[in-house]
Amino acid sequence: MTKSKTTIPFPIGIVTVSDRAYRGEYEDKGGPGIIAALGELLETTWQPITIVIPDEKAMIERVLVDLADHKGCSLILTTGGTGPALRDITPEATEMVCDKMMPGFGELMRTASLQEVPTAILSRQTAGIRGKSLIINLPGKPSAIRTCLDAVFAAVPYCIDLIGGYRLDTNPAFCKAFRPKA
Amino acid sequence: MTKSKTTIPFPIGIVTVSDRAYRGEYEDKGGPGIIAALGELLETTWQPITIVIPDEKAMIERVLVDLADHKGCSLILTTGGTGPALRDITPEATEMVCDKMMPGFGELMRTASLQEVPTAILSRQTAGIRGKSLIINLPGKPSAIRTCLDAVFAAVPYCIDLIGGYRLDTNPAFCKAFRPKA
Amino acid sequence: MTKSKTTIPFPIGIVTVSDRAYRGEYEDKGGPGIIAALGELLETTWQPITIVIPDEKAMIERVLVDLADHKGCSLILTTGGTGPALRDITPEATEMVCDKMMPGFGELMRTASLQEVPTAILSRQTAGIRGKSLIINLPGKPSAIRTCLDAVFAAVPYCIDLIGGYRLDTNPAFCKAFRPKA
Repeated sequence: MTKSKTTIPFPIGIVTVSDRAYRGEYEDKGGPGIIAALGELLETTWQPITIVIPDEKAMIERVLVDLADHKGCSLILTTGGTGPALRDITPEATEMVCDKMMPGFGELMRTASLQEVPTAILSRQTAGIRGKSLIINLPGKPSAIRTCLDAVFAAVPYCIDLIGGYRLDTNPAFCKAFRPKA
Repeated sequence: MTKSKTTIPFPIGIVTVSDRAYRGEYEDKGGPGIIAALGELLETTWQPITIVIPDEKAMIERVLVDLADHKGCSLILTTGGTGPALRDITPEATEMVCDKMMPGFGELMRTASLQEVPTAILSRQTAGIRGKSLIINLPGKPSAIRTCLDAVFAAVPYCIDLIGGYRLDTNPAFCKAFRPKA
Repeated sequence: MTKSKTTIPFPIGIVTVSDRAYRGEYEDKGGPGIIAALGELLETTWQPITIVIPDEKAMIERVLVDLADHKGCSLILTTGGTGPALRDITPEATEMVCDKMMPGFGELMRTASLQEVPTAILSRQTAGIRGKSLIINLPGKPSAIRTCLDAVFAAVPYCIDLIGGYRLDTNPAFCKAFRPKA
């Protein structure tokens, strides 16, 4: 789960939002998919704080707030709940707890996913900032998760720099983070 | 207007929003443009419920609610009123009646239209879900309508599946609807 | 600053939003960058109304309202304050004073900037209409300003036509404005 270089692993929030996974009717594949992807993308020592919750707006909000405000997660990734179905409410919960929204993330993740399936436009995934935390919604399927992370991850470390979070370094074999010279 | 396979045609709402068309100063070309496009795109038996209304927010809202809640339209397409002009208010009316917004539709329709005219960015068209209905804003011009429908239609049947609406099948000669395996 | 053809120059609002430029800790490069770009893009005689203000939401709003409602600026361009940092608040101030938002501008400007840097998705820049004025957020850096203006400017004159503002003509050597035939 963790890698070399520093000794204190940075916490990264990984939130699976799924009624069925929460009730145990369905094995959570989204959370492990994110962990596997980050294992390649990051060089920094990090540690996942994982949680599986149902598609309940108030619960999603509470978990995001806790990870951002009390658990020191400068990066929080959700999986699931971004579609058009009645219970899909992750983007609304995300927007509710964020100070500002980052529309470029959702746009680019949808554009990247569209190369794979035409139904990518059905994902309402977004991203936003709460305090010193960047929250990004990812889809539910592991393959789509990776497509989306690959599309945006080069901008993630600098974004976290700008909001005063921890310093993430990427593994150049998988992702070349970009930090403009001030 | 209708095609083979089932016997009860599914109602599709087609709403022309235009002060001039409503007053009869201008022949409605948007509504017939949508009907012509759907005639090719759909294999399912369907039936248009057409209405021409002025650019009045409250009236647009009332018509959308009626088509969604009382007329059984799992698909509602509007044409007109998406530009920057003072009277253009269709996206705001759509957002007002929707439970959740689908930003990917507007993004992709603008991207597709940009291949044809640089002024495509002036369209503020969006899409959203109300109950079991998908509402999509289309531009006013028939050629732009077709461009936008061609861009997004492969995702429309699955979207309507996810919200519990009727089952649409497309005509593979014109559109190959995509339904991921559950 | 001005060019041939008409004798009364049209005012264009150019608003630099930057705490450091406002305090004089930093030379404003965004405002001059916009002026240089417009000097090439426009054939119409125009005149900049420039102002440098800090990243204070109420002040940004007041300046935008003044330029739109009292200074006759059918076009207002801001530079700076569109990122994820705590003080970046230009898009929110813009949205607050606008009657309607134009999402296509932000989408296309980010897409164009993404060709240059992966961190383009961190820009939250948007555009909107207030009365007869089009307000567009631009990034802080002159090179990024030019990229963004080049991406959207062909649609700007027609947009201003549609909202009843002044008639801008572009310099075809740098930008071919598009006006669809009514």
